[in-house]
Amino acid sequence: MGSQLSPEERVALIKKNLQEILQPELIDDIIIKQQRELVMYWGTATTGRPHCGYFVPILKIAEFLKAGVRMKILLADVHAFLDAMKAPIELVEERAKYYKFCITSLLQAVQVPIDKLEFVLGSSYQYNSAYMRDLLKLTTVVSEHDSKKAGSEVVKQEKDAKLSGLIYPLMQALDEEYLGVDAQFGGVDQRKIFTLAIEALPRIGYRDRIHLMNPMVPGLHGGKMSASEPDSKIDLLDPPDVVRKKLKKAYAEPKVVEGNGLIAFVKYVLLPAGALKHGEPYFAVQQREGEPLIYTDIEKLQDDYANDVISPQTLKPAIAEALVELLAPIQKTFQESKEWQENESKAYPPADKKPKVKKVRDKGSRYPGEKEKLPDGPETDEVAAEKLEKMKLESKPTE
Amino acid sequence: MGSQLSPEERVALIKKNLQEILQPELIDDIIIKQQRELVMYWGTATTGRPHCGYFVPILKIAEFLKAGVRMKILLADVHAFLDAMKAPIELVEERAKYYKFCITSLLQAVQVPIDKLEFVLGSSYQYNSAYMRDLLKLTTVVSEHDSKKAGSEVVKQEKDAKLSGLIYPLMQALDEEYLGVDAQFGGVDQRKIFTLAIEALPRIGYRDRIHLMNPMVPGLHGGKMSASEPDSKIDLLDPPDVVRKKLKKAYAEPKVVEGNGLIAFVKYVLLPAGALKHGEPYFAVQQREGEPLIYTDIEKLQDDYANDVISPQTLKPAIAEALVELLAPIQKTFQESKEWQENESKAYPPADKKPKVKKVRDKGSRYPGEKEKLPDGPETDEVAAEKLEKMKLESKPTE
Repeated sequence: MGSQLSPEERVALIKKNLQEILQPELIDDIIIKQQRELVMYWGTATTGRPHCGYFVPILKIAEFLKAGVRMKILLADVHAFLDAMKAPIELVEERAKYYKFCITSLLQAVQVPIDKLEFVLGSSYQYNSAYMRDLLKLTTVVSEHDSKKAGSEVVKQEKDAKLSGLIYPLMQALDEEYLGVDAQFGGVDQRKIFTLAIEALPRIGYRDRIHLMNPMVPGLHGGKMSASEPDSKIDLLDPPDVVRKKLKKAYAEPKVVEGNGLIAFVKYVLLPAGALKHGEPYFAVQQREGEPLIYTDIEKLQDDYANDVISPQTLKPAIAEALVELLAPIQKTFQESKEWQENESKAYPPADKKPKVKKVRDKGSRYPGEKEKLPDGPETDEVAAEKLEKMKLESKPTE
Repeated sequence: MGSQLSPEERVALIKKNLQEILQPELIDDIIIKQQRELVMYWGTATTGRPHCGYFVPILKIAEFLKAGVRMKILLADVHAFLDAMKAPIELVEERAKYYKFCITSLLQAVQVPIDKLEFVLGSSYQYNSAYMRDLLKLTTVVSEHDSKKAGSEVVKQEKDAKLSGLIYPLMQALDEEYLGVDAQFGGVDQRKIFTLAIEALPRIGYRDRIHLMNPMVPGLHGGKMSASEPDSKIDLLDPPDVVRKKLKKAYAEPKVVEGNGLIAFVKYVLLPAGALKHGEPYFAVQQREGEPLIYTDIEKLQDDYANDVISPQTLKPAIAEALVELLAPIQKTFQESKEWQENESKAYPPADKKPKVKKVRDKGSRYPGEKEKLPDGPETDEVAAEKLEKMKLESKPTE
């Protein structure tokens, strides 16, 4: 499919809807001048459970694939291994698999080619001597001050901040070299880390890379997603009625476009998904009476929302239906794959979901250090996962 | 020889002349109660060139060996590898060998058994995956603040201090586990790093160790040895007349014992060397007239010095003669060993010594990044070595 686009169209698709690109001219150089494949990576920590917030970066990755980019997804298991008390090794391995299933089936659902999609486990190379030697080298050329500054938007600057928070940005730089990529993709919250990578890699003899940044997209519930409100996250496997119910609870101020999570979801997920599936952007809003309003660009929808032509109450069910449609093939794949089902139950064993059921105590031994916390409910695991995700400094969109 | 001492005598010899021991009761426990071998390590960065200042820790190590301790000398080459611009890899390897020759022959010169002496190159295990995994683990349980505090006496707290300064203390802790030792020995300037090791290792499931600390000994020239005064260092291979000449330039205030480098050298090197060689401490001072004064303990010598019975002018030649005697068997071994001679010329090629000789430019290519600096004289290499040694946070006595 990517080959049906001209080099110029591919470059335009790669650059579309991004907030910022560092060294964008190198994209043109590789694709138009050198006429070779662009190789890019996106990293994600495999500690939690992917939810609909992940659709934002994944839809952009879908566009990269459509544009013929070779895309490497780094499943960053090492960070979880390092803190085995919070996420036992068995779970982390299964979760990495689960992420792979989710990302792959979502990309298939929007019908982009996945022959240039690769998954790489961090542990497959990050413990190697050569990698570690380079990591130590980086510590000799990067100052505490600079590394701290790099992580300042992603890592909490607490008094007892752990050293790992200063090391992970260096690993994120080194991953660019060891994954053999031309570019790294992430949220704009990664900007300072990307800048550090650009400065630091040449100091140990490696070239600096292109960096592409998604904007920070507000969550469906306005502002930051809260781990203590598990209901607010829409799971990829939520059945249609649950999706509808959760979207009803979503928060959106009438007529306000700025910081509106519903509109952002249409812009960064639903319209691009329509474009990839049907060849053009498409989003339908059913009105109380008469024909549905059909949108093919976000500007028109934003105008209508600002002018109260569509209200939060009409927008929510429209998003719910589009999302249900997007999730349907993913859930169908899940229902048909015994392997994925088994993986899902191993990656997220019942104890995580129903901690108040007496039986879970029998499984307590699988969670060293967690046993005592089980009665606290599902937050325990989720809060831990959140922390780890923050530590990894990965770009995590809010739902 | 160690076996001729009772367990209690061995414990006393181990504890002798140290400034502080953390968990000293464990020494008694291992040697007297468990009646097993005590295993200890001392680390040294192999970037510079050992001089007589090294005699202070090495004489203490000689006592450990005499007391039956299994002694591991960590030749810390990794830190030099990491900064290859300053000390090319070929040199570092040869220098590690040179350190081994020097330390071994000094220990032989004071006639202690060396069957329990082991040399370990840092690079032989510090790049291994298991080690590196544990190092990353440590970064997740030690805060920036604590690691910075740990290095505060050894690493300069500059604004652009490199991250490596925060990582090396963790490596020094981990080395205890990977070298399989019961104890680490170092200067008292390492105290905060040792404390960090005691706190951090149990957090990743390893036991804390015993820590033995030498006092900081003033140099022969009073205060800190300066790298820009190469003359102030007495080299192990300096011929007798050079030793005498350098000692003549040594600085010592008459009647002042406190902070007196000459007296410290007698206390920590010459008297212990006498005890090891002759069975009892021995140091002779030739007076202008009459019989020489014979000292078998430092207190008497300190009294005589304070009361002006002996002056700096009589003490200096006495130290020179004792040092010449101590160096004689080392230099003899060097003269008889073609292997050591070849090693020495590879480890410290002429360019390091005589940078103003035109010929050295031909060898410029062996010093990447150093070429431009050659005309500056020998300081270039020495200053670089000093910096590396500081980075390693090793205990380095002043000469």
